[in-house]
Amino acid sequence: MIASFLARSSQSKTRVATKLASPITGLRFKSTGRTKKKLSKVKRIGFVGLGNMGLPMATNLFNGFKDKADFIIYDINQKTTSNFLKDHNTDPNNKDKVKVAKSPLEVAQEATVIVTMLPASQHVESVYFGKDGLFGALGENHLVMDASTIDQSMATRVAKALHEKGAKAIDAPVSGGTGGAQTGTLTFMVGSNTNADFELAKPYLEKMGKNIVYCGTNGNGQVAKICNNMLLGISMIATSETMNLGVRMGMDPKLLAGILNTSSGRCWSSEVYNPCPGVQENSAATRGYTGGFGMPLMAKDLRLAVNAAVDTKTTVMLGALAQQLYNQMAANKDYENLDFSAAYKWLSENSK
Amino acid sequence: MIASFLARSSQSKTRVATKLASPITGLRFKSTGRTKKKLSKVKRIGFVGLGNMGLPMATNLFNGFKDKADFIIYDINQKTTSNFLKDHNTDPNNKDKVKVAKSPLEVAQEATVIVTMLPASQHVESVYFGKDGLFGALGENHLVMDASTIDQSMATRVAKALHEKGAKAIDAPVSGGTGGAQTGTLTFMVGSNTNADFELAKPYLEKMGKNIVYCGTNGNGQVAKICNNMLLGISMIATSETMNLGVRMGMDPKLLAGILNTSSGRCWSSEVYNPCPGVQENSAATRGYTGGFGMPLMAKDLRLAVNAAVDTKTTVMLGALAQQLYNQMAANKDYENLDFSAAYKWLSENSK
Amino acid sequence: MIASFLARSSQSKTRVATKLASPITGLRFKSTGRTKKKLSKVKRIGFVGLGNMGLPMATNLFNGFKDKADFIIYDINQKTTSNFLKDHNTDPNNKDKVKVAKSPLEVAQEATVIVTMLPASQHVESVYFGKDGLFGALGENHLVMDASTIDQSMATRVAKALHEKGAKAIDAPVSGGTGGAQTGTLTFMVGSNTNADFELAKPYLEKMGKNIVYCGTNGNGQVAKICNNMLLGISMIATSETMNLGVRMGMDPKLLAGILNTSSGRCWSSEVYNPCPGVQENSAATRGYTGGFGMPLMAKDLRLAVNAAVDTKTTVMLGALAQQLYNQMAANKDYENLDFSAAYKWLSENSK
Amino acid sequence: MIASFLARSSQSKTRVATKLASPITGLRFKSTGRTKKKLSKVKRIGFVGLGNMGLPMATNLFNGFKDKADFIIYDINQKTTSNFLKDHNTDPNNKDKVKVAKSPLEVAQEATVIVTMLPASQHVESVYFGKDGLFGALGENHLVMDASTIDQSMATRVAKALHEKGAKAIDAPVSGGTGGAQTGTLTFMVGSNTNADFELAKPYLEKMGKNIVYCGTNGNGQVAKICNNMLLGISMIATSETMNLGVRMGMDPKLLAGILNTSSGRCWSSEVYNPCPGVQENSAATRGYTGGFGMPLMAKDLRLAVNAAVDTKTTVMLGALAQQLYNQMAANKDYENLDFSAAYKWLSENSK
Repeated sequence: MIASFLARSSQSKTRVATKLASPITGLRFKSTGRTKKKLSKVKRIGFVGLGNMGLPMATNLFNGFKDKADFIIYDINQKTTSNFLKDHNTDPNNKDKVKVAKSPLEVAQEATVIVTMLPASQHVESVYFGKDGLFGALGENHLVMDASTIDQSMATRVAKALHEKGAKAIDAPVSGGTGGAQTGTLTFMVGSNTNADFELAKPYLEKMGKNIVYCGTNGNGQVAKICNNMLLGISMIATSETMNLGVRMGMDPKLLAGILNTSSGRCWSSEVYNPCPGVQENSAATRGYTGGFGMPLMAKDLRLAVNAAVDTKTTVMLGALAQQLYNQMAANKDYENLDFSAAYKWLSENSK
Repeated sequence: MIASFLARSSQSKTRVATKLASPITGLRFKSTGRTKKKLSKVKRIGFVGLGNMGLPMATNLFNGFKDKADFIIYDINQKTTSNFLKDHNTDPNNKDKVKVAKSPLEVAQEATVIVTMLPASQHVESVYFGKDGLFGALGENHLVMDASTIDQSMATRVAKALHEKGAKAIDAPVSGGTGGAQTGTLTFMVGSNTNADFELAKPYLEKMGKNIVYCGTNGNGQVAKICNNMLLGISMIATSETMNLGVRMGMDPKLLAGILNTSSGRCWSSEVYNPCPGVQENSAATRGYTGGFGMPLMAKDLRLAVNAAVDTKTTVMLGALAQQLYNQMAANKDYENLDFSAAYKWLSENSK
Repeated sequence: MIASFLARSSQSKTRVATKLASPITGLRFKSTGRTKKKLSKVKRIGFVGLGNMGLPMATNLFNGFKDKADFIIYDINQKTTSNFLKDHNTDPNNKDKVKVAKSPLEVAQEATVIVTMLPASQHVESVYFGKDGLFGALGENHLVMDASTIDQSMATRVAKALHEKGAKAIDAPVSGGTGGAQTGTLTFMVGSNTNADFELAKPYLEKMGKNIVYCGTNGNGQVAKICNNMLLGISMIATSETMNLGVRMGMDPKLLAGILNTSSGRCWSSEVYNPCPGVQENSAATRGYTGGFGMPLMAKDLRLAVNAAVDTKTTVMLGALAQQLYNQMAANKDYENLDFSAAYKWLSENSK
Repeated sequence: MIASFLARSSQSKTRVATKLASPITGLRFKSTGRTKKKLSKVKRIGFVGLGNMGLPMATNLFNGFKDKADFIIYDINQKTTSNFLKDHNTDPNNKDKVKVAKSPLEVAQEATVIVTMLPASQHVESVYFGKDGLFGALGENHLVMDASTIDQSMATRVAKALHEKGAKAIDAPVSGGTGGAQTGTLTFMVGSNTNADFELAKPYLEKMGKNIVYCGTNGNGQVAKICNNMLLGISMIATSETMNLGVRMGMDPKLLAGILNTSSGRCWSSEVYNPCPGVQENSAATRGYTGGFGMPLMAKDLRLAVNAAVDTKTTVMLGALAQQLYNQMAANKDYENLDFSAAYKWLSENSK
C-alpha cells in the first residue's frame, strides 16, 4: 500500500472539519444551499490529463457520476484515452457515454464541469491559454477545477482569466500519491474566492478524495500544498539525520523513535513514516523504500517552494538545503526511484 | 507558564509506558521487586548543583523525601546553599535535617543517594574527579544520578568509573525547562546498564519529574536528549520558514497551521508550540517569546549534537545549519533572551 | 569609482587572449578576414533597452560608430529615448542620425546590427517574439547581440530562432556594472556557434567593453556569467565569515588579509575586494558599502545559477545557501541598497 | 609531487616579507641583532612527535643543524625513534649525536631548543602538562616551538604557562602537507608575543619551511591557520560546484577555468589547484586525487574553525556546511584517502 501524505484516517477528517469551521466562518462565507440545484443541470463532465494521477482520478469521478452525467476526456497520449473509452463506454443505451476530445477546446465546448490534472505550469498554460485551449469556449456555465501542482502565480492567473469569462474556478492540488488517487482517498487543498464555488466543487472532489480542505482565496490551494510539502521535506531529512545519529551512537532505533514520538522532536516523519528500516512494520523504509512519494516529486515541490520564497523575498535556508539534497538523490540512479524517506539510506550509506 | 518540552499531559505518560514496555522487555530487564527494601535504608540524600534548574529540583526532592531521609547539599554559590538551609532546615526535632557540605567529597561521605545537576561537561569532570570530588568517597552503597546535559563520552566515563567502585550510576538529563523543574513535571531520559538501577532511581526521579523514560545503557540518556533536541531545533526553524512563507504568500496563519497540523507537515513545533504569534493562545510566540527555552540553551544542545555527529562520522547538514542559526540569534542582543521559537520573528523581521 | 567585476587591468586582457587561444583553435575556428568588408555595409545600428546599463552602453556605441552609421533606438520609457535623441541627434547635415522606433519591429526593419540589453528573460521573450517584436523583420542581413543576463535556455532559444531566419546571433552578458558601462570597460562573455559571428560582433562590443571573452557556443556566454558570479557570490560570503572569525578571535584584519592573500585561502574577494572595512583603501567596504554590485543583482544571478543547477540535476549546496543569504539581505531595507560585500557587515552586526 | 598549500614560489615569499613589514613595525617590534649570539649557545635540540609530518621535519632540522648542535628526540612509537637514531647517529667522533629520550621530561632536561609536532590538543596537553611532561624541566633557557594544529585556547594556555616559567614560546602551525615537510618548503604561521622570540625561532623554522609568516601574538598562528583553511575548504567546494555546473551545462572545463581565473570568481582552488580532472596537468585532480591534503585533515581543520566560531559567537554558515561535507567524504571509504579536491568527484558522481 502506498502512503497518503495528508490523509490521516477517518478520525482526522472530523478534526479538519472542526478546526477549519471557524476560519471559514471568519471569512464570512455562507452556504447557500442552492448548489444541488445547479449540480443537476450538468450534462457532461470533462477531464483533461489522464497520466499516472489523472487516470485513476478520472476513473473514480466517472464511477461516481456515471448515472448522472456523460464524460469527455482529453490527453496528448491517445493510447490512454482510447483505453479509457474502451473500459468505460460500455452503456448499450448510450454510445456517447464517454467521448474522446480532439483538443481541450472541444472539452470546453461539450462539458460544463471540467477537471484538469497536469504535470507543471507550462502544461497548464498550454491547455488553458494555448491554441485550441479551454479558453476558446469557457463561459458562465462552467465550473473548472485544476488539480495540478503549479506555482501560485499561474494558479491565480488561470482563476482571474476564468472569472473574467464568468466561469467558476478553483485550484485544488492534491496529496496522497497514486495510491490515494486509486483508492479515492486524496486530500484536496482548495483555493476559492467564494464559498459558493467551493461548495459547488465539493461533490466532485469527494468522489476522488477524502479530505477537502479549504485554504483561502484562489491560489492558496497551491500555497498550502507547497508549504506543507516544504515542511514535510525538511522534517524527513531532519528525522533521518536524527535517527542515523542516534543509531551510530548506539541506540536501538525503535527505542529512539518511541522517545522522539512522545517528545518535542516528534513529527509526522518520525511518527507515521519513520525513515529507519524496521522501526515501523508497514513503512516505505521497511519495504526497501519502494512505492511512496518519489525523490523527483519532492524535488519538484521544493523547487516550487524555494522559487516562491525568492519571489516573495522570504528566507528559507533549510528549505533551500533540503531542495539540494532531494535534487542530489533524484539525480542519482540508485535513489531516483525510491521513496523520499530514503534520505535515511543515503545518509547512512554515505558514511560507510 | 513555561513549556514542558517533552511532557505531553498525563495521557502521553501512559503512552510512554505502553510504547516502551516492549523495548525494555526486549532487552531482558526484570523488575526484582526488591527495590523498596533498599530504599528504606537511605539515611541521607545528597544534591550537588543548585542553579536555576537544580534549586527547584532539589526542593521537590526534599519535599518528597523529607519524612524519610535527611539532606546534604553543595554548590559553589554559598548564598544559594545557605538560603536552602534557611528555608528547609525547619524541623525543631532535627537540627541536622539539611546540611551544607564544604565539598562534593563531603556529600559522598554523608549521603548514599546523590543527584548532580551541572551546567556542562567540565563541571561534571571537576565535581566527580577533581580535588575533593565525589570520587574520594564513593562505593558500593551509592546510587548516583547525573541530570546534567553533557556529551555521551563524559557520561559513560562517569558511569564506568562509578561501576568500578561498585556504585550504581545512571545518566538522566532532563527536558521541561525551569517551569518543569518548579512544577515537578520534568521528563528524565535515563541511561542505565541494568534495569535494577533504573528501578532504584525511579522513586527519586518521580519526585522531580512526570515522565521517566528508559533510553538504554549508560550514556544513552544523553544520546536521546541531544537527538530529540536536534530534531526539535531543526523542526522549529523549518516551521518558522514555512509559516513565514505562507503568510508572505497571503495565507491566514491560523488556517495554514490548521492545514499543516492535519497533514504530513505537522510536528510538535507546528502543533503544540507554533512560532507564529496569534496562532495559539498560550504559546511563547503569542506572549512575545518570553520565558520558554532560551536561544543559548538550544545553541548548546545543538553544539553537543553536531560534535557528537563529527565524532561518530555522521552527517547532519540540517543540524549544522540550525546550530549556526541558533548561535547567530544567541549572539544577537535582541534575541538572546527570547524563546527559541523567536526564529520566526528573526526570519520575518530580517525581511522588512 | 565602481568596481569592474571581471576586468583586471590591461595586463589581464593579454592573459585572456593567450589563455583562450588554444581552446578556440581547438574548436577549429578560423578567422576569415572578411569581417571588415561586411562591417562597411552597415547603415544603421539599433539598440533596444536603454536602462541603467543600456543607456551608457548605447552612448559609447554611438560615440564609437557615429561617423560610420546612423542609429535607431527603442525603450518602453519614452523619456529616455527622447533624451537620447536630444543629446545625440546633433548633426546638422543628418537630421535622421538618430531615430526613435515605435517598436522593436521597427528597429529590425531599419537596422542591420542590433544590440539588446534587457532586465530578464520575460523581457527578452517579449522584445524578440512578442507582438511588434524583432522577429517580424529579422533576416540574413542581421547581426543581433543580446547583452541581457538571462537563463541559458532562453538564450539558446533566441539564437536558434535567429539562425533559422539566417541571422547572426551572439549572447554577450556583461560584467562590470554601471561603472564599467559608463567607462566602456565592461567584460563581455560571448556565446557564439561560429568564430565568424564572434569576430563580426567584436568591433561593436569593443566600443562598450574592454575584455571580450569567448565562452563557446550560443548560450555559453550565459553559462560563464552565472558560473563566475555563483563562485564570486559564495567566495564573498566565505571571505566575510573568515575575516569576521579572525577579527573576533583577536587578529588584526590587515594582517589576516595579508596572510590569506599569500596563502591557499586567497580569492578575488579577499585580495581585490576585501569585505572588511579598512583593509583596502578603495574598497566598497571602506567607503561604507556604497556603489558597487548591489544585493538584488547578486541575488538574481544566484537564482539563475540555482535554477540552472536544478534543471541540469546538479548539486550546488553552497550556491543554494548563498542565494538564500543574498535574498535575505536584499529583502532587508538596511542592506538592499548596499554592495554585496556588505555580507561582512551583516555577519558582524548580527552578532552584537 | 604533493601540493604545498600556502607556499607560492620564491616570488610570493618576497611578497610576504613586503606585505607584512608594516604590521610588524606597527606593533613596535625591533630586531635587536643579538639573536645569533644566543643561538651559538645551543648545545642540544629536542624534537617531540615524529609522525608523518614530524619525521621529515626533524630530519630537515637535523641536517640543517648537525654541525652546530646535538639532538634528542621523543615519540611514543619506539620504532620510529630507533630508526631515526640508526639513520642519523653516524658521527664516529660523537656517539651521542642523537639521543632517544624516555619521556618529554628528558627532552626538556637535555635540550634548550625544542620543537613539538603533535596530532591534536589532547596530545599537546599530555606532552606539556602530563606526567613526565616537558613542564617538569622548562625554564629561562628554553625556546619552545609548537608546530601542532590545535585550538587557540590550548595554544595560549601553553604559551602562558611557558612564559610564567621564563621560557620563550611560539605557536607555529604549518601548511604544506607531508610533501612540504619532506622538501622543507612548509609555511609556518607564527604567533609570538614578542618580535625577539619570533626572530629567535626563525633560523630553526627556516630549515623546515620556506615561508615564515608573522601572525600576531601567541595563539594567532592557530587563528591564521584555521581561518585560511576554512576559506580554502569552502572555496574548494564552491569551485567544485561551479566547475560541475558549467560542465553539465555544456562548457569545456578548460575554457571555463580560464574565464573564472581572469574574472572575479577566481581563487586559489580554481587557479592553482583546480578540482576538475584535466584542467591542470599536475593537479591532484588530474592524477586521480592521490596524495595532497586528505579529507580527514580538512575535516579536522574545519572542526576547529566551527568550534572556534561557536566559542566566539561568530556565524559561519558556509563553514559549517563545508565541515559536514568534508566529514561525509572522510566517512566514506571511497573518498577518505583522497585529496580534498575530490569534492568535485563526489559532486559529479553523486549525480550519475
